[in-house]
Amino acid sequence: MSYFKNINKIQFEGKGTDNPFAFQRYNPKEVVLGKTMEEHLRFAVAYWHTFTYGGADPFGVSTSVRGWDYSDAMDQAKARVEANFEFLEKIDIPFYAFHDRDIAPEGETLQETNKNLDVIADLLESNMKATGKKLLWNTANMFTNPRFVHGAGTSSNADVYAYAGAQLKKSLEIGKRLGAENYVFWGGREGYETLLNTDMALELDNLARLFHMAVAYSKEIGFDAQFLIEPKPKEPTKHQYDFDAATTIAFLQKYGLKDYFKLNLEANHATLAGHTFEHEIRTAAINGMLGSLDANQGDLLLGWDTDEFPTDLYSTTLTMFEVLKAGGIGRGGVNFDAKVRRGSFENEDLFLAHIAGMDSYAWGLKAAAKLIEEKVLDNIVDNRYRSFKDGIGAEIVSGKATLHTLEQYALQNNPIVNDSGRQERIKLQLNEVIFSV
Amino acid sequence: MSYFKNINKIQFEGKGTDNPFAFQRYNPKEVVLGKTMEEHLRFAVAYWHTFTYGGADPFGVSTSVRGWDYSDAMDQAKARVEANFEFLEKIDIPFYAFHDRDIAPEGETLQETNKNLDVIADLLESNMKATGKKLLWNTANMFTNPRFVHGAGTSSNADVYAYAGAQLKKSLEIGKRLGAENYVFWGGREGYETLLNTDMALELDNLARLFHMAVAYSKEIGFDAQFLIEPKPKEPTKHQYDFDAATTIAFLQKYGLKDYFKLNLEANHATLAGHTFEHEIRTAAINGMLGSLDANQGDLLLGWDTDEFPTDLYSTTLTMFEVLKAGGIGRGGVNFDAKVRRGSFENEDLFLAHIAGMDSYAWGLKAAAKLIEEKVLDNIVDNRYRSFKDGIGAEIVSGKATLHTLEQYALQNNPIVNDSGRQERIKLQLNEVIFSV
Amino acid sequence: MSYFKNINKIQFEGKGTDNPFAFQRYNPKEVVLGKTMEEHLRFAVAYWHTFTYGGADPFGVSTSVRGWDYSDAMDQAKARVEANFEFLEKIDIPFYAFHDRDIAPEGETLQETNKNLDVIADLLESNMKATGKKLLWNTANMFTNPRFVHGAGTSSNADVYAYAGAQLKKSLEIGKRLGAENYVFWGGREGYETLLNTDMALELDNLARLFHMAVAYSKEIGFDAQFLIEPKPKEPTKHQYDFDAATTIAFLQKYGLKDYFKLNLEANHATLAGHTFEHEIRTAAINGMLGSLDANQGDLLLGWDTDEFPTDLYSTTLTMFEVLKAGGIGRGGVNFDAKVRRGSFENEDLFLAHIAGMDSYAWGLKAAAKLIEEKVLDNIVDNRYRSFKDGIGAEIVSGKATLHTLEQYALQNNPIVNDSGRQERIKLQLNEVIFSV
Amino acid sequence: MSYFKNINKIQFEGKGTDNPFAFQRYNPKEVVLGKTMEEHLRFAVAYWHTFTYGGADPFGVSTSVRGWDYSDAMDQAKARVEANFEFLEKIDIPFYAFHDRDIAPEGETLQETNKNLDVIADLLESNMKATGKKLLWNTANMFTNPRFVHGAGTSSNADVYAYAGAQLKKSLEIGKRLGAENYVFWGGREGYETLLNTDMALELDNLARLFHMAVAYSKEIGFDAQFLIEPKPKEPTKHQYDFDAATTIAFLQKYGLKDYFKLNLEANHATLAGHTFEHEIRTAAINGMLGSLDANQGDLLLGWDTDEFPTDLYSTTLTMFEVLKAGGIGRGGVNFDAKVRRGSFENEDLFLAHIAGMDSYAWGLKAAAKLIEEKVLDNIVDNRYRSFKDGIGAEIVSGKATLHTLEQYALQNNPIVNDSGRQERIKLQLNEVIFSV
Repeated sequence: MSYFKNINKIQFEGKGTDNPFAFQRYNPKEVVLGKTMEEHLRFAVAYWHTFTYGGADPFGVSTSVRGWDYSDAMDQAKARVEANFEFLEKIDIPFYAFHDRDIAPEGETLQETNKNLDVIADLLESNMKATGKKLLWNTANMFTNPRFVHGAGTSSNADVYAYAGAQLKKSLEIGKRLGAENYVFWGGREGYETLLNTDMALELDNLARLFHMAVAYSKEIGFDAQFLIEPKPKEPTKHQYDFDAATTIAFLQKYGLKDYFKLNLEANHATLAGHTFEHEIRTAAINGMLGSLDANQGDLLLGWDTDEFPTDLYSTTLTMFEVLKAGGIGRGGVNFDAKVRRGSFENEDLFLAHIAGMDSYAWGLKAAAKLIEEKVLDNIVDNRYRSFKDGIGAEIVSGKATLHTLEQYALQNNPIVNDSGRQERIKLQLNEVIFSV
Repeated sequence: MSYFKNINKIQFEGKGTDNPFAFQRYNPKEVVLGKTMEEHLRFAVAYWHTFTYGGADPFGVSTSVRGWDYSDAMDQAKARVEANFEFLEKIDIPFYAFHDRDIAPEGETLQETNKNLDVIADLLESNMKATGKKLLWNTANMFTNPRFVHGAGTSSNADVYAYAGAQLKKSLEIGKRLGAENYVFWGGREGYETLLNTDMALELDNLARLFHMAVAYSKEIGFDAQFLIEPKPKEPTKHQYDFDAATTIAFLQKYGLKDYFKLNLEANHATLAGHTFEHEIRTAAINGMLGSLDANQGDLLLGWDTDEFPTDLYSTTLTMFEVLKAGGIGRGGVNFDAKVRRGSFENEDLFLAHIAGMDSYAWGLKAAAKLIEEKVLDNIVDNRYRSFKDGIGAEIVSGKATLHTLEQYALQNNPIVNDSGRQERIKLQLNEVIFSV
Repeated sequence: MSYFKNINKIQFEGKGTDNPFAFQRYNPKEVVLGKTMEEHLRFAVAYWHTFTYGGADPFGVSTSVRGWDYSDAMDQAKARVEANFEFLEKIDIPFYAFHDRDIAPEGETLQETNKNLDVIADLLESNMKATGKKLLWNTANMFTNPRFVHGAGTSSNADVYAYAGAQLKKSLEIGKRLGAENYVFWGGREGYETLLNTDMALELDNLARLFHMAVAYSKEIGFDAQFLIEPKPKEPTKHQYDFDAATTIAFLQKYGLKDYFKLNLEANHATLAGHTFEHEIRTAAINGMLGSLDANQGDLLLGWDTDEFPTDLYSTTLTMFEVLKAGGIGRGGVNFDAKVRRGSFENEDLFLAHIAGMDSYAWGLKAAAKLIEEKVLDNIVDNRYRSFKDGIGAEIVSGKATLHTLEQYALQNNPIVNDSGRQERIKLQLNEVIFSV
Repeated sequence: MSYFKNINKIQFEGKGTDNPFAFQRYNPKEVVLGKTMEEHLRFAVAYWHTFTYGGADPFGVSTSVRGWDYSDAMDQAKARVEANFEFLEKIDIPFYAFHDRDIAPEGETLQETNKNLDVIADLLESNMKATGKKLLWNTANMFTNPRFVHGAGTSSNADVYAYAGAQLKKSLEIGKRLGAENYVFWGGREGYETLLNTDMALELDNLARLFHMAVAYSKEIGFDAQFLIEPKPKEPTKHQYDFDAATTIAFLQKYGLKDYFKLNLEANHATLAGHTFEHEIRTAAINGMLGSLDANQGDLLLGWDTDEFPTDLYSTTLTMFEVLKAGGIGRGGVNFDAKVRRGSFENEDLFLAHIAGMDSYAWGLKAAAKLIEEKVLDNIVDNRYRSFKDGIGAEIVSGKATLHTLEQYALQNNPIVNDSGRQERIKLQLNEVIFSV
């Protein structure tokens, strides 16, 4: 059975714009800075956007018709598994990622829901063995079901919190069973609509308690995935607690959780929070918290999470530059948390969109490598901060300076001469680098 | 000598809308929840907006003509001191706040600059003794002078950093001498324009080092003011390091500075960061970091710091609600970090604007007190989280619950019933409370 | 059969905050500026938000369970009709408004769809006769169905355009039959996702052609409703053609349609476009284009259409001020294009939310009337522009002035003296007016 | 006398990233689509950003020290003229543009101000003759001086309006004398701060009257420049009347001015209004209103006019694509209404920034030409709208269709089949095109 029958003519090795399916830039085995592209990038397909989402938006229903849209929920779930592995094979992506509710439907009871999960997990497991495909991460969807209307780990209702705990337990077990390299927490409803009815202190304390329980349980069962928190500032709740990287780090520090978690950063979440994606990555990196990337892009003229496939080469270049400077993405990966536009409703668009994303990231990787190899930015930065290498600058950096010594220095150091920051020139150089790879 | 001669007819005790200068709501000696209004609110005048700023904006020069605008810089500085105390007296506000460069002009050298500061500090000191007016906080302006073009404590130039240290030292000394109750750090240029030429890790490390030096020096000289950091997300730099309350708390935690600092929160900075002001206050309060308030308001349809005088009663009510619930503003105050609109260029507007702000905050205080006395929101919150008071909820809160016990509970607890959050009804109630005081 | 059985205890005439269901401010028969409140406000219930929408958002499914949620689509449609009229009676609102697809389900063919519409239209008609409730406006939903993925009147596919024409024809017939006072065009998909694949000129020409056909057909069948266009800047498409009032007026002028249309303005759409609601109303009014209002409010810290029930008294006051100054809303009304929050999922919330909206608008009406009766703003404006009443000002206004006469005047008129705009004082006065009614 | 002595080593013909001053892409005489690059692009230097602005922002004073900063205002004005022509020569840009107040200081009286203008106009004229440099456009600065605090053509004060008229008259005369190819109206203060004190109808009527006077006077003196209005949504006023292209077109249509004006569109103004630059250009083009371009770029994460030099190749490509499709920029040009960053305060940065802008626009021109020559987007659009070429589509476009004929067609045309919009694939193709030129 094939869900992508009409796509079997795709020649990934093709070149030239006359072959729209062709990869122009991504070559998994090409070595860049000592590692292959596929080792650097560790691409993953997002199960929810590719196999569950069908193009619905707040003003319209789904537009795509997929072969796996059976009316029986378990039949559909099984078909999605098959479609997933067929797609991973054809598109040549090594990883996938899912929420528990993406892969199996909820039953009438938690017992039944868990049974459904087990059936599908069996199927995933056998397919993974057969194909060699791997699970970048899994997570628990604790935001779609009406029970989570007021939150999961931050619900105002202890019964919901208990349910969330149970769901999380099962989800960790699934992760262990499928060898997930990471486990993600995105708090879709962990935030508030209005402070007027919200006990923010209790909600945050409770959320930290749930994370501690997850740490303890994963230790108990020997699940050694890297735990990741995914920041997002708003949507669906008016104010999400994990607003951005810095907010999340503050939370983890406060509750003694920093050693157990890293961050899963998403481009569109960064911009919704008022940051560039590279800002979020740098923030995580200098705090030792860079975990994994949700690769997509937003529309900065729109105020919601558009989750577009990443094609902006400025962004992919600077993203990969930050990743390379941070020593790589480690156990994380580049997960396409991106959906085809509602108007791109054909099966072919799933391929074209992933190819656009992969090529754009490969291009970014190569441009970033060139920036590093040619020390384009390193030289600029080294020169710009050169005054901290000796004299008063070295004293400052070493921690020896005091306000007394700084004052003594400043009183006799007149005038001060600054250098231009040369932003315009650097941007021109960046254009030349990006577009010469 | 009077700078507000034509305002001497103002009758502060007046009532009725026919007297535009009348205070309708603010009555300093009126007792609200056991304290007088002036004890709750601790209003302060911002020296820079009231005595330095004249209405310039990026597209136009100053519009106001003040009596103190002498051409000699020291004459002007002295006149501003007199105008400040005359204004404080006439408007009946007990505190003021300033940057070092607001009160005295810079000289050719740091020596000369410090001498200018000393001359004016003498004058401030004698006026404070004579009038009983107090200094809510002072701070060092390390953003206006061209030397700070690339930052002060985060400059790429060690010479600038040294200068900043020297300026800070002098500023702490001035604060001690004038009995400042707080000392504020707002990092006007502590951020970056582009990551392409920025060593963010070094800059943040250096900033922390400067803060540690300030802590040490204030201990050395016995300056016991509360240190405050003022978050702001952007403007003037593209990305300010102290983006918001949570980001600042993360920074202070990381660098071992949390015990020495609290936050000076500003309404317009909150909204520029994508938060409500009450969100920022709640965040600070539940972290024990609520220090002081910069009272103003932004225009949410504009993307820059408009620093308008606060007149929105929804905001002043929820602000004072958060302050009261947090146990009051302590050594902090309600500082009008607000400027008259460019079109409000007459001296009378300075009075009218402060009266608008004071009345709006007094109104907010009374409405907040009513919310608390009548337990309007407390009852809603108590009821909403009632399930955490016993049973599984109490186990969660006490830290006894595990994923095992939560799962056991959830497996037998079906279905889950949630309550409505009743947001629309609460907002209707809020209208009735605000507008019945 | 009652869908709101448990709400029959509501005493609308109740007063006091202990009765949360009580109307504090809205009294339909109270006379304000010579007309009753109900004549001024002409409230309408939005069928879609109240009887179709169930709380779904992009991250979660419906949370409400309504009595009318039958599995058979026509049974459900009939039940909604009954619920609508029961609700209109209990909440005492005289008007309702709907899209064709709100009231009846689509069939397999257009023929079947139209038949479904006729069945429900019969039911609506008999209920309207029985209750005296009226249709403020109806419209055609040409955005939910997948066929409209690339637009309706601006579709890239002529077959879709033809379908839209057919749907519009039927919708106009339904409007005539039910005596709709207005007919609304909101172009949910009339915009573009990317200019890269868009022929904007052709799309706009085609849209104008469809409007001309609608004008012609309504004349042919004697449907004398006021035609209204509803501007919105973005969402669902990246760029909606009817961005705001001014853009829509430009379009209508260009295509010779201005005499046949007015505007249906929505508060949340105004703020998404970067305007206040009062700006949009003023813009429409001074162009003779004020048609009707979609009453709701957005969250200015969020970037999408939240469609909250209006409770902000600043906004309702200034809205009603603009409406009163424009001579009233005419055949239009105040339609609650607002949805209960996802967390307000109980039937009671439908009542509470509409009461919150009605009370807030009634409050705004009374405050606006006071502003007008006491000439609070009129006096300010009259005084501010007094120089245009005679002399050079009168010459300017009468059209007699030329650059020559202006130059002659200016050369001898030195210096120029301006007045303060007094914005801060006016805002203080506004607080006192709003909250004294 | 040279103001750019240290820049005389610049080799514009240089190539390679080791020469940061080198033009990589811009070659004035290179032919693209039948015209030379310099004919297509018609670059202009903005006098205000390059010779007046020195890096000040709302939080800091100027950072640059230029050779022409003499203390005597007329000496400074004359030096700026020399600097302007030296810069135009060295950077090889054929046009410049100015506001009246950029070139000459105001005197005590309008008479004196006009005299200053005449002195400098003489100097400009002789330099233009000597160098062959041309004036792309001039304009009147009616926003910086305090007299314009409440507007110029929309002032609440008739005396100010008269002054504006006189200033405009002189400015038109200067334009004629210097052979300006265009004359621009940007209403820096033509908007409002708050509707509460604003008579919007009168203000807009008065503005239209001033435009009519300008049209009449330019006809009288035989000044045949193209008149241009420059839209901007906000800043400095809260709401600018010329919000965007569509709003401006609505205004011009209403007041019978459409035949006399075109639009001067600015990239950063477009994004502040919520549009892409290419949207604004397309809107102007399909209304026959494309006049000229202010080339710069904003930072979409910041909410104010950053006026950065344009370096984003996506934007320059799509801008030039729109311009080419519209038949070229005509008498307009590509004016760098852009300022070096405050941190780029050296004279060299003026060169580097303009080079960055010119290269980026040249790159965009070449990429756009390739898109057109290879019919990349034309083929997509032609195919997408193919159904409007015959059958029912042709009837629609020809105006023959009615709701009757559309209904007849739709009733028998089931099902409707749409095509994918292929947005992801098109963006991938765009990357390949842009970066292969």
